[in-house]
This record gives sequence, structure tokens and C-alpha cells, in this order.
Amino acid sequence: MTSSPVKIAASEAPDQPDSSPELEALYRGFEAELLVPLWTEIGDLMPAHPRSKALPHLWRWADLLPLAAESGRLVPVGRGGERRAIALANPGLGGRPFATPTLWAAIQYLNPGEDAPVHRHTQNAFRFVVEGEGVWTVVNGDPVAMRRGDFLPQAGWAWHGHQNATSEPMAWIDGLDIPFQYAVDASFFEFGPDAVDNTETPARSRSERLWGHPGLRPLTHLQPTPATPLLAYRWEHTDRALDDQLALEKEGVTATLGPGHAAVRFTNPTTGGDVMPTLRTEFHRLAPGTETATVSEVGSTVVQVFDGMGSVTVGEHSWSVERGDLFVVPSWQPLTVRSEGGLDLFRFSDTPVFEALNLNRRQEATR
Amino acid sequence: MTSSPVKIAASEAPDQPDSSPELEALYRGFEAELLVPLWTEIGDLMPAHPRSKALPHLWRWADLLPLAAESGRLVPVGRGGERRAIALANPGLGGRPFATPTLWAAIQYLNPGEDAPVHRHTQNAFRFVVEGEGVWTVVNGDPVAMRRGDFLPQAGWAWHGHQNATSEPMAWIDGLDIPFQYAVDASFFEFGPDAVDNTETPARSRSERLWGHPGLRPLTHLQPTPATPLLAYRWEHTDRALDDQLALEKEGVTATLGPGHAAVRFTNPTTGGDVMPTLRTEFHRLAPGTETATVSEVGSTVVQVFDGMGSVTVGEHSWSVERGDLFVVPSWQPLTVRSEGGLDLFRFSDTPVFEALNLNRRQEATR
Amino acid sequence: MTSSPVKIAASEAPDQPDSSPELEALYRGFEAELLVPLWTEIGDLMPAHPRSKALPHLWRWADLLPLAAESGRLVPVGRGGERRAIALANPGLGGRPFATPTLWAAIQYLNPGEDAPVHRHTQNAFRFVVEGEGVWTVVNGDPVAMRRGDFLPQAGWAWHGHQNATSEPMAWIDGLDIPFQYAVDASFFEFGPDAVDNTETPARSRSERLWGHPGLRPLTHLQPTPATPLLAYRWEHTDRALDDQLALEKEGVTATLGPGHAAVRFTNPTTGGDVMPTLRTEFHRLAPGTETATVSEVGSTVVQVFDGMGSVTVGEHSWSVERGDLFVVPSWQPLTVRSEGGLDLFRFSDTPVFEALNLNRRQEATR
Amino acid sequence: MTSSPVKIAASEAPDQPDSSPELEALYRGFEAELLVPLWTEIGDLMPAHPRSKALPHLWRWADLLPLAAESGRLVPVGRGGERRAIALANPGLGGRPFATPTLWAAIQYLNPGEDAPVHRHTQNAFRFVVEGEGVWTVVNGDPVAMRRGDFLPQAGWAWHGHQNATSEPMAWIDGLDIPFQYAVDASFFEFGPDAVDNTETPARSRSERLWGHPGLRPLTHLQPTPATPLLAYRWEHTDRALDDQLALEKEGVTATLGPGHAAVRFTNPTTGGDVMPTLRTEFHRLAPGTETATVSEVGSTVVQVFDGMGSVTVGEHSWSVERGDLFVVPSWQPLTVRSEGGLDLFRFSDTPVFEALNLNRRQEATR
Repeated sequence: MTSSPVKIAASEAPDQPDSSPELEALYRGFEAELLVPLWTEIGDLMPAHPRSKALPHLWRWADLLPLAAESGRLVPVGRGGERRAIALANPGLGGRPFATPTLWAAIQYLNPGEDAPVHRHTQNAFRFVVEGEGVWTVVNGDPVAMRRGDFLPQAGWAWHGHQNATSEPMAWIDGLDIPFQYAVDASFFEFGPDAVDNTETPARSRSERLWGHPGLRPLTHLQPTPATPLLAYRWEHTDRALDDQLALEKEGVTATLGPGHAAVRFTNPTTGGDVMPTLRTEFHRLAPGTETATVSEVGSTVVQVFDGMGSVTVGEHSWSVERGDLFVVPSWQPLTVRSEGGLDLFRFSDTPVFEALNLNRRQEATR
Repeated sequence: MTSSPVKIAASEAPDQPDSSPELEALYRGFEAELLVPLWTEIGDLMPAHPRSKALPHLWRWADLLPLAAESGRLVPVGRGGERRAIALANPGLGGRPFATPTLWAAIQYLNPGEDAPVHRHTQNAFRFVVEGEGVWTVVNGDPVAMRRGDFLPQAGWAWHGHQNATSEPMAWIDGLDIPFQYAVDASFFEFGPDAVDNTETPARSRSERLWGHPGLRPLTHLQPTPATPLLAYRWEHTDRALDDQLALEKEGVTATLGPGHAAVRFTNPTTGGDVMPTLRTEFHRLAPGTETATVSEVGSTVVQVFDGMGSVTVGEHSWSVERGDLFVVPSWQPLTVRSEGGLDLFRFSDTPVFEALNLNRRQEATR
Repeated sequence: MTSSPVKIAASEAPDQPDSSPELEALYRGFEAELLVPLWTEIGDLMPAHPRSKALPHLWRWADLLPLAAESGRLVPVGRGGERRAIALANPGLGGRPFATPTLWAAIQYLNPGEDAPVHRHTQNAFRFVVEGEGVWTVVNGDPVAMRRGDFLPQAGWAWHGHQNATSEPMAWIDGLDIPFQYAVDASFFEFGPDAVDNTETPARSRSERLWGHPGLRPLTHLQPTPATPLLAYRWEHTDRALDDQLALEKEGVTATLGPGHAAVRFTNPTTGGDVMPTLRTEFHRLAPGTETATVSEVGSTVVQVFDGMGSVTVGEHSWSVERGDLFVVPSWQPLTVRSEGGLDLFRFSDTPVFEALNLNRRQEATR
Repeated sequence: MTSSPVKIAASEAPDQPDSSPELEALYRGFEAELLVPLWTEIGDLMPAHPRSKALPHLWRWADLLPLAAESGRLVPVGRGGERRAIALANPGLGGRPFATPTLWAAIQYLNPGEDAPVHRHTQNAFRFVVEGEGVWTVVNGDPVAMRRGDFLPQAGWAWHGHQNATSEPMAWIDGLDIPFQYAVDASFFEFGPDAVDNTETPARSRSERLWGHPGLRPLTHLQPTPATPLLAYRWEHTDRALDDQLALEKEGVTATLGPGHAAVRFTNPTTGGDVMPTLRTEFHRLAPGTETATVSEVGSTVVQVFDGMGSVTVGEHSWSVERGDLFVVPSWQPLTVRSEGGLDLFRFSDTPVFEALNLNRRQEATR
């Protein structure tokens, strides 16, 4: 039991009776029978609006990368530990490796010539590359090159391993729904081969050759799939789409979220919806001097600065940010971003969970 | 931090390097920067199959009802505490009022003449009546009678209060998705009037008069709604549907889940799907001597015995059960039920969450 | 070729060149190569709004029923002709048995002891009973009683036959999408046994025992189906639903389409949508003295007066109507109905076709 | 009336009674009351499988283009006639400008400097360019360049005009659902300005800049739309996608419909489904020497040869085909295509209509 009857009656639930032997016996009866009254818990359980235990927090790339490199020197990668991934642990979540109550975000590091062994799990995952190149993620036997700016989704239950095929180490960001699946007891996991099963290093993956043509769908694959079959969203496309939006805005066409604020969502070409059932992923570009609207949303978000400099306010916290920095936005905390000389941001969130369950809400602050 | 580097290196993650000053410095660096390595946590976070912290457990109606009645004598119901509801607290979940990691189940009790004040919340809810009558739930101003065997869904964000309009106390079961919305930070709550705003006591609610005719939809309400607009599923319909299935089975028509096992799902007439986005609710009838298949499912379930006697096995636990008893089935724990002289069961689960997110799995044991 | 070049150039397409040998040679070239210019046809093909060749028309029950009875005396029913059904032939549609360009409506007649042989077809169908009883429609082996006021849907490709199990003849209305499937070349047909394969005469069909309980779904049938599995929508439910709406209206609850205008749609309990993919079916009740709004809709409608008296205006046609009378409303023709002492109407339309293809439009006249 | 009672009784419906004065009176009664018996019509109305009045037919580009050019010399384009479009008139459809019972296909021709005036209509449309360039289609004010190999969809009710901004004439193919909307009375039409309202000639349209990036969706446009917002599917993407499929096939990856048969469907990026609610559009590439499976489908198809040479069999008709040739495949007629030195085909069909209404069927002949 986390709370005693006396404390509760006195403080949280109004109009409770004074303590008495009978009342104390009642509460002892609850404890004995594994029961807890609502009236002592409702304030915590049913707040007026989401009041996350997670806190806004910033991790600096300048701190993360050296620790990852040192791990590369000291800690092997292989079967059992599976990945040299180091996760953000939100200061409000008791030391668990959870960026937010639903989202996992980690820096992963692979030395030249190293393999991360093949496995699969129900967790949806992706990789995002803020710098470097040289690793191929092999998904169901399809090697997918990873390069700066690329977004690489990884549907739940797909076999996958990683291989560094170059002479340089490489680091990138992994995002998954581990905390969500952990909280709701949905996780399955299976080991595959200890080394990746296809060591080719093609510039374009099979999935891109099948699915990477805008608006064109192979007739061999006509059913909608819960997750995207396209395994790489390349930087040259993302970059050009964002530039196009800003140029269209200058021509007077509705193409940006607000003045100077271009944004694309990565989508599943078989449905037009999010790339994976639990994860939303987007790229935002703020022209120099742009400030976004201040928005609160149900669900949590992780943002990585891809390029540029700016400042960020999440609830009552504010930080200056630059390339590689990562910050989290807990549920319903208002977020505002300001660019200095231009700012490119990658963001992911659990919003599809709430949309699927009719629990999403969004509120824009009036300036 | 929940785990120290030494313990981890020694036990959980295989092939870890021996402890060394450099390695300890690395782990201290992780702690300082609020980072946690995957390789020390993967066994807990990513099990081969769901391994819930929740435990199978049984609560007996014979224990619950007297405690509820004593609460009725000692604890007032009113604004602030909101409801005289006493929740099942799963022994694996740290004393929180959570029947499972996602589901809330409570007995609620209202004295003659009492009101439970009006409020609304994003949590989806329902009431199920195992015995008694005399309370009207007032939903958005529509008074809905509650009687033995009735199932009364309550969509998130609907205003509602309860009123006991008789001279007898009444108890019933509340089911909600409180733990789920708490885990993912989705809860909103708002107070309404202190007393119910419509004290009429009609036999049929407005919602039943609009929506309670099989296959008929009012032309004023043609859009699908996320939750059912029908506020009462009456026992006479459920009872007859189950009897019909068992009779059809005898005529050789496919109508039962297995020999002697009739079952209906409560559905939203605007979609044919579950009554609410996060909750599945069903009624099962086992003819005398029937044993169900042994089934494991992702997600958790709460069952209340409505009538009859039988026995239940959940994982490694077995109990005899009778009217009013409640038990929980954590994720992926196999469930088998056996009826003696006939057994009627009400069950609810979080399965719609997993179906919406492509995370559902089901496995039937081969006998 | 329906049109000659000279006529066209002179009349329909403005600003056409004067006739000349070169121009006439061009048009002869079109004819020789099986080509037709748009500019001579656009006025007919692409009108400002739908301009149906079908005409508003009324068929009186007092005329239909004696001809059906005389057919019962003179014309056998059996394999080849399949049904003693006599179809409404819209006066604008060249003598074809098409009530509208998409809808078939016919009176069917069965003598005591007669069978209509078993067959199946892709056409969606239903029966509606304006008077009498005693025939069982046997659908996939399930005998379904037919009684005054009942609506009996019949999904495409279901085996079905009819049997008159009484000593009285019976007549009813068949509605199908024959003209639509004929126009778009979608029809398949297959013969079954020459006599119905189940001669039982139960009061409730199997389908009603499985599906006729409001909001309850058998766990053996959880997938959505394109057409309703419920084979009879009984008059007592329809009648009560309409009465409930009018009573709720008096209590100030939004339940009617307009003052005194109650209406229900027959729906598929597996989806909440229309009973069949191409057919919408509804029942309307107008309280004494009620006049409906004047509404134009894309698509065509057939209405049968079930009870009462009133008057109807379709475009520029007006009629007094009474029990059993049938009238058609071509696409986009405005419809107004007035009840005298109360009027009950059954109506069906092709609206689901247009909704599925984003072609539906609806316009309500301002009074 | 199309048929007399005597003829019917004698020939079509089996087991009909001999003619008699009473029977003839009955049939006269039917005629007088605008009724037609099913038993005389069922053979035509409800065939065992679709038996289209449309015939397989081939139109040669070598015949079409000169007639279009001569029209360009003799017939103006402007308000009233609207478009210099010359439609294929299926020899089985009574001289109407209908390629099939549901599909319109026409060659359109625009002289240097000419405009086709702005209008909109509910008909869904597209343009496909088999040769030439220089025209811009202006859709809701967005000028879209047209070049060989490009596919340009045009959702119903979008404003659009065309402008030839070069010194060469240009011809292309228009495909629409005119006959379908004509048959079901769904057509609306509205005139816009007499000249296109945006005479810019950009290489990329606004729609391509917003929507032409694979898997990327602008955050300003997150709702699914019934038709694609992407107004040009460029040849370089289609060509590359088909080449990629054939190369993947050689690597042993499932990417082609059959050996040597690459194919893509043009899709709506907001849904992953067909580009428009009534029209399916695809591009097929047959490697040298390839023969397709022989397939029958419900619904009709029009094919234009984009490049190469080959032969085609539709039902009992066979033709050699080359660049620009157009042929039609009526419902349920089996189609086989053989390439000689390689064959590129553009095809469109009405299949989405049948899929939306649960009427689609497909049958592949066993060789």
C-alpha cells in the first residue's frame, strides 16, 4: 500500500470522516483483501489534465557521443546484450531507461567491422542518423545503407541486424516503443543468427527499389500493411521537400505550418498514415528567426536537433540547442521552438496510440 | 538507477567484460548523464513473451460486499472523493488500485437516497450489475436504470452521476481503463454539478429508445462514434442470445465457440466493433460440464462470475468460483474455465488497444 | 451513330464552323473509325446537374395486385423463369424492367404450396411485405418467415428460394440492384435445387437467433461482412423504434428528422452501415399533418406506402397515395411528402453506390 | 416494350403456358400498367457471367492522330464544345462515345497557343501522354507540365483548363468515367473562365513540390482525400520503378507479377489506394518474349501501347499492336498480352467501383 488511511483522510479527499477505530478497521480490511478505495487516490489517478511523472529534459550530443565511443572501446556487442545502445533515462521515471513513459531513445555505436546480431521483437523501431555513415541495417535480409539525415523505420517483428562495413565507427539514434509495450505487457522477442545474413552493401535497398517511387505501388504488394514497407527515407528527399515548402510559402501557397515553419511526416505508402502503429515521425525546418506556435499535445515527444541552432521551451524549462542535442516533451507540456540561423529538427512521438484510441487532444496557446 | 554496473556485468548480460576502473568510470558517466545501457536491461525489457508483473488473483464477492457495505456506513460519498468505489489492487502491482497494468475494477456502493456527483473524464468506463437494482446512472442527462445482469457502458468524456432512487442500498462493479490512461498520461477530468441533474426513474433510457432496436439506426445519428451510444445492454437480451446459441448448437448450427460454450460480445451499433476504444466486454455461458479451450492472449482480462459454479485455472493458479467472484488474467497467462452445473461469466479486457496497434496475439493450447 | 455532323454543328455546340466538304469528310472519318467528338455530345453527357432519362412515376397497388394474382392463375413458377415477379418499368427507360437506371422493383406472387426454385446471383436483393404472410424465404438453408411489415435483406451470392407453406397466396415486393449490375456488367448467376432444401417453418430464423439481439455479437462471427447477416428485420421492432422517436420528440429530445418525421435505417450489425453494398433501405413515419423537407439527392429512390394516406410531389408530378402504392424518384428530382392521417413509408435507394465513390450530393430546398 | 408476350412464351422462358386469350390479356395488362415480367427477361438480365454488350476493339494511333490533327485544322476549341476531344465509340454500344459501358477514352488535340477553357465536373479524369509535350494543364490554378510518359490525374470537381504554351501542336489521351456517371445519373458540371487563369509554365507543379517526395507528407495536409493530390506522375519515376522490378526479379526477389512482367499502380499518397474513386490506372512492362497470364476480371479496361510491339488477345479477338494503339477489354473477357522486343502498356479500368461494392471477381486461366 502506498498510502495510509490517516494521511489520506486528512489531506487529499475532502469531507472525509475523522479517524475512528471502526474506520481504521475498514481500511485494514481493504489492505487485507487487496483493495484500495478510489476516494484516496482519485487526485493522482484522475487529474484535471495529464500530469506526467516524466520531466522535460535535455541531453547534449557533446556528452552522449564520447560516452558511446568509450563504450565502443570497453564493451563488446554480441548475443545476449544484443546492441551497444545507451538509452536516455528520464529523471522523473525512477532510473529506468525510458525517455518518456512510452518512448525509448538511445544512441547506438558500432565499431568498424562489427556486427550487431540478428533478432526480432514486437517493438516498433527506427534509426535516425545525425552524422556519419557506413553501417548497413539488414532487415529481413535486405541491407539498407545509413547516411546522415536518413530515417530508417523498422516494423515490429522484422528480423534485423546491423553491420559496420567501413573503417570508421558510426553512431546513430534508435527510437522504439519499448516503455509502452513494457507497460502494457505486449513484448515478444526472438533470437536470429549471430551475424547479419546478408553482407552486401548496396547504395539502394530492395525496399527502396520496390517502394521508393512517389505514388507508385508494385502490383505484387497491394494489401495495406500496418507498418511501412519502405525501409529508408533518404535525406535528399526530406531536404528537398522542406525547401519546396518554404519556397511555395514565398509564392503565397499554403504549404507551411506557419510562417517559416516547414514540416513533413514520414508515412506508410500503403495507407498514407504513420510509418508504424505506435510511432509518429516528422522532420521540421524553421527558417532563420522563426518561432513556432506553442502547442500542448496528449502523449510524449522526443526531438533531436539535426542542424542549426536555436532555443526551446518545454513547460517551465528552456535550453539553447545545437546539432545532435535531444530533448523530451512530456504529455501536455507546452512546446515552443525558436530558430536562430535556421533549425532542422527530427521528432518522434507516440501520438498514433492516442489517435487510434480516441484519446488525442491538442491545444495551441494564443499568443 | 535501479541497477549497479557490477551486478549487471556479473549476472544478466552475457559476455560482459570484467569490472575495471575504466568500466566503472563509464557506468558512472552513464549515471551522471541520465543514461542506461540496453545490455543491462534487455532481459527485463524485452522478454521472449509477455511476463507481466501482475499476478493471477481471485477476489471473493463474499469478502468484497461486506467491506463495501461497511464503507457505506462509515464513508460519505460526495464531491472530491466522487465515488464510493473500492478497487481491486493486484498483488504484483505495488499496492496501486490496478487490477492489471491497464484495467481498473471496483465495487461501488450507494445507499438509499444517495447521489454520486456528476463529473466526466477521458477514462472509458462501464458498470455491470451482479445483483440488486434501484440505481439510475445519469449520462449526459439521460437516466439509465441498473438491474441484475445489465451491462452499462460509459464512454470517455460523457457527463455522469448516479442516484439511488430506492430504499435499498445497491452495489455493482465498475470497470475502467484508469491504469492504462495513467501509464500513458492521457487523463483529463472535469467536475459537474454536485447532484444528478435528472432525477427521473424511467424503465427505459432515451438511449435505449433511440438505439435499442436490433439493426435499426435513427436517421438523426448516422456518423460512426468511437464509443457506443447505447447506454444499457439488458439482461433479457443477453440471456436470450446465449440460450439461442446453445439451442442452435444442438440443431447442428455453428453458433458456439466450442461445445457448450456460448458467448456474445457487447458492440457499438454504429460500427459493429467494441463498445469503447480501449475496452472489450463479453458474456460467456458454459453449459453444465463444459471446459473451455486453454487460451493465452496479449493483454489482460478481468472476469466476474455472474451465476453458477465452476473452477478456473490461470497460469499456475486454480480456484473454485461462484456468484460475484472476480479474478484477473495477466497478459499471456493461459486461462481455462470449467463449469459444474452451468456457469455464466462477464469478462472485460484491454484487447482493443492491441488490435488497434497491431500487437494482438492469441494462442490456443493443444489438449 | 446517334447524331449527324450537320445537325450538331448547327444546334448544340456553339461557335462551330459552317458545314463544308472538308468538315463533312472529317465527320465521316470519325464514323469510319468508330469515333465521336465530345463537342457534339457534351450537352447530353455532362449536364449542369443530373438529368435522368427516368421519369417520376406512380404504380398503384390496386392495379398491381390483381395482375399478380392473374399471373398466379396463368403462369407457372419454376426453373428457367425462376420467379413469378413482375417488375416496374419506368416510362423513360425504353420498356426495360427498370424502376430507375439502377434499381429493380417488382411484385412477387406465390400460390399456396408453391416453391420458387433455389438460385444465387451477385445482385443484392430484399423483400418487403406490405400485406399477408405465409411464405418462408430459405437463405443458405435458413427458413425465414415473411409477415406484414417485415424487411428481409438478401446479400448477393446467397443461395435462396421461397416456399408458400400455407393455404393462401402471398404477394410482396422484391427490390434488387439488377439495372445497376446490368449497366456495369457485373452479374453472375447460378442455379441451385429446383425446390427449397429446408421446408421447416420456424417463427424465428437461425439468423435472427444469432444476430437479432441489440448490440450483441456472437463470438463465432467477428469479422465485418459486406452485407448484413441478419435476414429479417421484424415489424414489431421497426414500429416500436418509430413510435419511440415520436415520443422522444415530444419530450424535447433530438430524435426525428424534423417535426413529426421519424425515420430508421436498416443497418448491417457487423459495420453499422447499410444492409448491402449497393442498397440503402429505410422506414419513415410521418405523424398526421406532417410535411417533409423538400430534398434532392444524387441517385434514385423507390418508395412504397406501407400504411396511411398522403400526397407526394416528385419534381413536377404530384399524387395522392395509399397503402401499397409505389413511386420512383429519379436522381436529383426534389421529393416532398405530406401525410394526412399519418403515413408510413418504406424506401430504398442506390445511395451507398454514390457514397462509396464520393459522388453523393444532397440539397434541401429552402421553404 | 422491347418484347412481345408471344415471342417470349415461345422461346426464352422454358415451360411457359401456350398462348391463350387470357394470357395475351395478362401481357397487355402488364404493358398498360408499365410492368414487365421477370420470366421473359431473366436470361438477358441475369446471365451466368457478365456478357457485356461492349465488344473487344482496337483503335490504331496511326488512324487517330491524323483525324485529331485535321480537327485541329477545322474545328475550333472554346466555350460550349469545351475540348477538342474525340472519343472511342465501342461498336457494341450503339454509336455512343463510350469506350466501354463505364469508361471514356479520347484523343485530345491542342494547337500552338490554344487554350481549352476552364470548367469542372464530377467526372474523374486523367491525361496520359504517349508522345509530345508543351501543354500545361492548369488544375485549381496550378499549371502542370505534360510530357511523354506522364500520367496526370484530375479529381472530380477540380477546376481545370489546358494551355499549349509552345509552337507545336500536342495530342494526348483523356480517360474519364463519363459513361458510368451518365448511366447512374451522377453528373454535375460548371463553367469557369474562358481562358486558363495561370499561364506560368513551370517544370514542376505546386502539387509535385508538395506531394512528389516518396513517403513524405506535408503537415498542412493530413486528412485522407478521395482522390490523389499529386497531379503528375512523371515518366522518369515510372520507368525507373519498372526497371527496378525487372532487376530485382533477376536477383531472385519477388517484385514482378510473373516472369518478365513488371507493373506499378498509380496511387493516392493520402490513402495508398487508387488515384481516383472510380478509376484504376497502371503501367505494365513486358520484357522481350514475355507472355502474361490470361486473366478475366469484372469490369472493363482500356489499354494504350506506350512503347514497343507485341500482340494481344481479348476474348476471341487478336491483334498486333504498336505505339499509341488503344484497345478495350469488356467485362469478364479474358486478356493475354505478348511482347516481342519489349512492350510498355498504360492501362485503366473501373475496378475500384467493383471493389468498393463487393462485386469484383478475377479469374486466371490455367495454361
